[in-house]
Amino acid sequence: MKILVSNDDGIDSAGIAALAEELKKIGDVTVVAPRTEQSAVGHAITMKIPLRVTEYYKNGDFFGYAVEGTPADCIKMGIRNIMKTKPDIVISGINHGSNTAINIIYSGTVSAAREAAIMDVPAIAISVTSHEATDFSYAAKIASLLAQTVVKNGLPAGTLLNVNVPDLPEKEIKGMKLTRQGKSKWDDIYEERIDPYGKKYFWLTGKLIEADTDLETDQFAIRNNYVAVTPIHFDLTDYDTFEDMKNWNIENLSTDN
Amino acid sequence: MKILVSNDDGIDSAGIAALAEELKKIGDVTVVAPRTEQSAVGHAITMKIPLRVTEYYKNGDFFGYAVEGTPADCIKMGIRNIMKTKPDIVISGINHGSNTAINIIYSGTVSAAREAAIMDVPAIAISVTSHEATDFSYAAKIASLLAQTVVKNGLPAGTLLNVNVPDLPEKEIKGMKLTRQGKSKWDDIYEERIDPYGKKYFWLTGKLIEADTDLETDQFAIRNNYVAVTPIHFDLTDYDTFEDMKNWNIENLSTDN
Repeated sequence: MKILVSNDDGIDSAGIAALAEELKKIGDVTVVAPRTEQSAVGHAITMKIPLRVTEYYKNGDFFGYAVEGTPADCIKMGIRNIMKTKPDIVISGINHGSNTAINIIYSGTVSAAREAAIMDVPAIAISVTSHEATDFSYAAKIASLLAQTVVKNGLPAGTLLNVNVPDLPEKEIKGMKLTRQGKSKWDDIYEERIDPYGKKYFWLTGKLIEADTDLETDQFAIRNNYVAVTPIHFDLTDYDTFEDMKNWNIENLSTDN
Repeated sequence: MKILVSNDDGIDSAGIAALAEELKKIGDVTVVAPRTEQSAVGHAITMKIPLRVTEYYKNGDFFGYAVEGTPADCIKMGIRNIMKTKPDIVISGINHGSNTAINIIYSGTVSAAREAAIMDVPAIAISVTSHEATDFSYAAKIASLLAQTVVKNGLPAGTLLNVNVPDLPEKEIKGMKLTRQGKSKWDDIYEERIDPYGKKYFWLTGKLIEADTDLETDQFAIRNNYVAVTPIHFDLTDYDTFEDMKNWNIENLSTDN
């Protein structure tokens, strides 16, 4: 099995090291990841400046390719120019911090996997729910298990799995749940400060308002110690509203009045 | 009507000037836009560095607020800290270049409108199909017409309209079409070059492979000289696959074997 591994925390993070190590047991692993942390970059791609790629070594051994760009750049570059062929699967992570509910929109980890899905390669994004996580071994095993399951069962073109693993000892985890994207959102606050030169600046802070109460949502599943597995896609069309809007008769609207 | 205007081409672009000027005829307009071009940044938000906001003047008159950040930052900051109240509608654009099919995923213009939808504010993203567009007057009138229609008809919480206007003289435009996100995608190529110091670098190029042949898709509609109006949302769950995956019995998968 040919596996392309990426992330958004950067090629030197603990999560991607644990993931690559575990996946080497089941396939040929190529790591192509951002040289520096790219959290919350969403699906940004680099177009206005050129990309550079360097070989990255860990303890003297070749580990993978570091791209001075975004997670989505890594997947495009990894498949087009480094592997030069489509892998059997792309796995992005293991992210430090959950990517559930609204966070899916902002996540670089998910966007790397989504870029793979755009390129018709099956993909999994995997995250551990705490930024302070230090043990990624259980999440790495989940990634390996789901990678093998996806390659066996297949996924529709354009679909990826977004997986969130509670940051708990393995024996406290209740199992896996098939979930939907939850509706929890951030209450943002911009903290205002004054710099040493008397100018205002703002830091984004805030807290997640937990609105999910159904075990079939990613956010409530992780809160209840389940691994949440959500199939997502990149067709953003709101088909219900598409049907409702047929009553708007926009074909007959005119700018002339 | 209180209207918040943003974009991804930057506060000094021609598209946002035409949009703000037209919308001032129907409401109170507040402009909060990126200080510099932010194309293809997707739904990136700024968390690791602080944001700065400055007043931006055009020909000596106050035009709006320039944020040293992304389009999504502008909407969060615009609503939370500048307007300090929710506007009746957010309009993002007028983008220089189309945001149809897969480009919706990469677009900063669409992400600004999507951030508004996340904050439960009705929103429209509007683009003209050519990067070389110089006349935004018709697209501005379409934005105004649709803004009034959205405020009158309402949109479900979390839904926004993504609008693409052909870069053609008004009399050649055939009207508006209600559309879905098309399936056209990029065939990416990384052009390899050598810098003056002998190091390799890569430029992303490529061409859009037009796969849409149905007038109910955004991409085919603009190719046929219609204004394409697509309702989109940020629930990325793939509900068809969610149903299919019930047969995977992931609850019973185990990492123990």
